[in-house]
Amino acid sequence: MSNRKQGVLVAFQGEIGAYSEEAALSFFGSSIKAIPHKSFDEVFKAVQEGRVPFGIVPVENSMEGSIGRVYDLLLDSDVKVSGEIEIRITHCLIANPETSRELIEKVYSHPQALAQCRKFLQHLGCELIPAYDTAGSVKMIKEKQITDGGAVAGARAAEIYGMKIIANKIEDNPNNFTRFFVLSKQDSPCSGNDKTSIVFSLKHKPGLLYKALGEFAVRNINLTKIESRPTRQKLWDYNFYLDFEGHQSDKAVQEALVKLKEISIFVKVLGSYPKMEVKSLSCS
Amino acid sequence: MSNRKQGVLVAFQGEIGAYSEEAALSFFGSSIKAIPHKSFDEVFKAVQEGRVPFGIVPVENSMEGSIGRVYDLLLDSDVKVSGEIEIRITHCLIANPETSRELIEKVYSHPQALAQCRKFLQHLGCELIPAYDTAGSVKMIKEKQITDGGAVAGARAAEIYGMKIIANKIEDNPNNFTRFFVLSKQDSPCSGNDKTSIVFSLKHKPGLLYKALGEFAVRNINLTKIESRPTRQKLWDYNFYLDFEGHQSDKAVQEALVKLKEISIFVKVLGSYPKMEVKSLSCS
Repeated sequence: MSNRKQGVLVAFQGEIGAYSEEAALSFFGSSIKAIPHKSFDEVFKAVQEGRVPFGIVPVENSMEGSIGRVYDLLLDSDVKVSGEIEIRITHCLIANPETSRELIEKVYSHPQALAQCRKFLQHLGCELIPAYDTAGSVKMIKEKQITDGGAVAGARAAEIYGMKIIANKIEDNPNNFTRFFVLSKQDSPCSGNDKTSIVFSLKHKPGLLYKALGEFAVRNINLTKIESRPTRQKLWDYNFYLDFEGHQSDKAVQEALVKLKEISIFVKVLGSYPKMEVKSLSCS
Repeated sequence: MSNRKQGVLVAFQGEIGAYSEEAALSFFGSSIKAIPHKSFDEVFKAVQEGRVPFGIVPVENSMEGSIGRVYDLLLDSDVKVSGEIEIRITHCLIANPETSRELIEKVYSHPQALAQCRKFLQHLGCELIPAYDTAGSVKMIKEKQITDGGAVAGARAAEIYGMKIIANKIEDNPNNFTRFFVLSKQDSPCSGNDKTSIVFSLKHKPGLLYKALGEFAVRNINLTKIESRPTRQKLWDYNFYLDFEGHQSDKAVQEALVKLKEISIFVKVLGSYPKMEVKSLSCS
């Protein structure tokens, strides 16, 4: 895979062992250096200021929906989307090596992860204790040598901290996927099989969203995501986030963007990037 | 306001004093009985099984985006959307009456609320401790009589638990709004100023989303929200969530829905309900 990079620095949000780090490793290969950051804002800043060549951030999860803060940062920052990757989220119950399942009385993790494993944890009958993040809760039970407790996190966190996996695939719903964007200061060149993400705001006239999508439909450009978000700058103005197949250097895409600009207050191309192996919305 | 109801039961997710309870009170008036539930699933179940006539659930937050689990439950359940309300989320730092700002060394709250108040809390220089929910963390510091700590929650939580507001409006971004849906088993009758929410999945043919939106555009039906979500049933199938102006009993809406069904695998009307005072997307 052409993304493989030796020793390259990649910023992510969360602790070592977080799902974002897993995404970085599966995108770039295992010989990168993934650097933990406290917040999405700091990941964007690290890329923007050139302290790291790449960042990786989650954009949407099949259970939780789109991640608003990341979409806001994409809108405000000059950082480009230069890649995408999706990973399946599989939660494990993790404990210190000397702990067995019967000994576990408390389970620590991010509230969303605990909520996603509700059936398993109810059956286990433990006290659930919220924590800042999944991998961080594994680190914590290791450092504090908690032997009557476990943590919910990905398998990689168990490996990194030398902990034991008590149970695997404990999530209620196996359809749990997160899509990540790779951030960089450079545009990705055309690979021949690309996607482009844009954000735009339409002028105030009826029928303009229909007209906007028509510019893509008549050029056979397939949409793969559409989402409206209230801007809050002026009450009830909307930004539209659109992903579609094709690279911003393609003639058809350029033509559609020129037409879109005519009916928009602004159009911002967030980036073009090689597409993951997925089928399109098939409904342009 | 015609929503005002005396003593009616309304299910919400979270602890007494949660933002969802505030939304219920501002929608139905202060003489309802808001009933806390552990999860969104349980709120839907309580309405579905007729234990309460109404439920209230958040659907989208301006900072965090749409709430995926609620959209999934709307798709799977027979409960109707019968109202909408939006409230501004204003976080407070809350403490026991004998605690002063200088004494606070630890601050408890839901990780999202802590993240939304990052600047204020950084300046305060305290240890941040994640909790299950905002109002629940106020209850906890009261019950455990924690005098060297505070909690981040809404003003109502302080009032309910008899606690002190140390600082108000401590969120980084004042544009923090959450939109809620009111759930019930009954459809709302036409008020003359309504919105309708639907979910649909299109057949696999290029250009169908454009065609679908055209059915609304040609009938001058204004869209107020659009969002695609991967179904995960079959890989990369999508459901579209659409809100538009008008009631499902309107002739134009009925015609558009008939036409939409011709190109869809399924169309589900989630409900029609009186519109909040907002401007439309002004773009279809």
